[in-house]
Amino acid sequence: MTERQAETEATPVGFVRLDSETLRGNVIRIFEALGLTSKDAATVAHALIEADLMGVSTHGVSNYILLLYAPFLQKGMTTATPNIKAVRESPTMALIDGDNGMGHVVATHAMQLAIKKAKATGIGIVSVRGSQHFGAAGVYAKMALEHDMIGVATTNADQLVVPLHGSESRFGTNPLAIAVPTDQEPPFHLDMATSTVPLGRIMLSLRAGEPLGPGWATDEAGRPTIDAEEGYRAKRLLPLGGSFDLGGHKGQGLAMVVDIVSGLLSGAGVLDQVSVDRGVGHFFAALSIEGLRDVDEFKTEMDHFVRAVVATPPAPDAEPVIYAGVKEARCRADRLAQGIPLHPDVIAGLEGLCKELGVDWRG
Amino acid sequence: MTERQAETEATPVGFVRLDSETLRGNVIRIFEALGLTSKDAATVAHALIEADLMGVSTHGVSNYILLLYAPFLQKGMTTATPNIKAVRESPTMALIDGDNGMGHVVATHAMQLAIKKAKATGIGIVSVRGSQHFGAAGVYAKMALEHDMIGVATTNADQLVVPLHGSESRFGTNPLAIAVPTDQEPPFHLDMATSTVPLGRIMLSLRAGEPLGPGWATDEAGRPTIDAEEGYRAKRLLPLGGSFDLGGHKGQGLAMVVDIVSGLLSGAGVLDQVSVDRGVGHFFAALSIEGLRDVDEFKTEMDHFVRAVVATPPAPDAEPVIYAGVKEARCRADRLAQGIPLHPDVIAGLEGLCKELGVDWRG
Repeated sequence: MTERQAETEATPVGFVRLDSETLRGNVIRIFEALGLTSKDAATVAHALIEADLMGVSTHGVSNYILLLYAPFLQKGMTTATPNIKAVRESPTMALIDGDNGMGHVVATHAMQLAIKKAKATGIGIVSVRGSQHFGAAGVYAKMALEHDMIGVATTNADQLVVPLHGSESRFGTNPLAIAVPTDQEPPFHLDMATSTVPLGRIMLSLRAGEPLGPGWATDEAGRPTIDAEEGYRAKRLLPLGGSFDLGGHKGQGLAMVVDIVSGLLSGAGVLDQVSVDRGVGHFFAALSIEGLRDVDEFKTEMDHFVRAVVATPPAPDAEPVIYAGVKEARCRADRLAQGIPLHPDVIAGLEGLCKELGVDWRG
Repeated sequence: MTERQAETEATPVGFVRLDSETLRGNVIRIFEALGLTSKDAATVAHALIEADLMGVSTHGVSNYILLLYAPFLQKGMTTATPNIKAVRESPTMALIDGDNGMGHVVATHAMQLAIKKAKATGIGIVSVRGSQHFGAAGVYAKMALEHDMIGVATTNADQLVVPLHGSESRFGTNPLAIAVPTDQEPPFHLDMATSTVPLGRIMLSLRAGEPLGPGWATDEAGRPTIDAEEGYRAKRLLPLGGSFDLGGHKGQGLAMVVDIVSGLLSGAGVLDQVSVDRGVGHFFAALSIEGLRDVDEFKTEMDHFVRAVVATPPAPDAEPVIYAGVKEARCRADRLAQGIPLHPDVIAGLEGLCKELGVDWRG
């Protein structure tokens, strides 16, 4: 499961289900009309639809097309046809400059390169600068799976997370995604923000009129708060753990690791050097299992491992035990069959954008 | 800082300070007498003294020499002069069989090999089976620093950590250590268990007659408990985060990643296949910064980054902001100058072992 908490199978009240392939066609037409090549438009659509299929709707078609991707392309803040190139390269590694292209396009290029290098040498490491918001990190990590590789993807982001004991944000929610192939069972697929919760979770509490969890956020002075309004206003999330006693220093450590590999190994920068406006840095790795173990043996052992985890007897009144990737796999099966649930406002917004761009919306 | 919480500079009440080089000599003589080569005895002493210098005393000379390392060597459960060999190897990767040698010797060999490979190809990955308890993971990660590399070290361990919602332990405390070089500032040095706290923290609460933190451990049925006695008896620690609301699924995900890379990429195994008795698996990586960035630029930017973090104004009444590695660096400076604090019982135990082995103890 991801911290963005893969949605369950039920269609949320008021939402409409749209067939994923129909939706994909709409998204491709939108990005073609915004100036991307057909290939790149398909890449962006793939990254967005994959996020929706996995249940990570915050990084699917609903939020950022209208808020970010379309206006940035229209204003020329994003390069529609970027010249993505390697600044430094060896058989195992590359530093890529994304020429300020769409994050999904740059990230897909970079992860493909990491996989290609891993095929040749066992391991591929690609760091990226000159890129933008790339959606769900998990989408890129899982590209490694069909190649019998372990995939890793990270990105840094706008400063929204305080260091432990601090009163100002220094890190992004800095997601870390790791995907590992299995044989018969759903692949292991961790996609986690290194903050306790993402900002979206604070917004949900605010809308629901509910208090925040005690380790989620601070007020503007850096004091932990459970007041949703105060937490949303301050935009100071706590690192995973939330307090020293619950390991918040570890969450801070992981947030810094993501900044270091995404921002400093790439030269994209950290702190106020990165933002949705200024661009961000990414890091990708692919590790070929064959370099260390027989692939079939490894995948069989992965099945045994995840089955043993899932078979753990639950505590009294607790939900069944699962592992990262189970909810995503269930959600994917449901949404492939039943369509992707979208709020009517989102559909109206996308239809409006289609009209503006002079392309068909198919519902 | 590490989850084992680097000790502060003050000498604990009743403890005696022993010069680190004098202590090193004692430890070398002990392991030589237990059958290790002089080189391997020096390697073990280095790993133990480094842990003590960093303030990770639980993995220094105090606990496991008497409890584990000496008796295992004396009973032949640990191979004193192991034939460590590569089972599978390429320019970037190796799978090492440690021949059931001391974890510190096998791990040092493996990390050195990862560094050697990274010098040649930019990145080195070494997975290890047939090894034993290796002490503090951070000791091996930080071997990368003097080579201007990022170091990673993990190990799996006895089942002590429940999956979220589960009633039985499935994972070890599975530490993850990552070290990153800086220029002038203390290096970034994260060494964290993927459980909220290690078992030692539960023991401390038990001894102090204090309740546990709410996300630390469960009772034998898997229900969260703050009763130290119950928590210690059950030996069911919670993954980092502790509950779903505080991101416990992320802690579980990280614990599984460590098991996967340490146990399944190596063939050492996971779950009940690994234990202090049966041996464990490790994973090491070294990444050459030069492969992606100019080293001096990177290290200067690391300095800027960690300075900005430390300069974050603290919340009202909060401790100053630090980052992983700051407490360790302070502790190291203090202990190099003032000696390593040891409880008189530990000194008596080690003196007794020396007498038994017919070697000098120098105090």
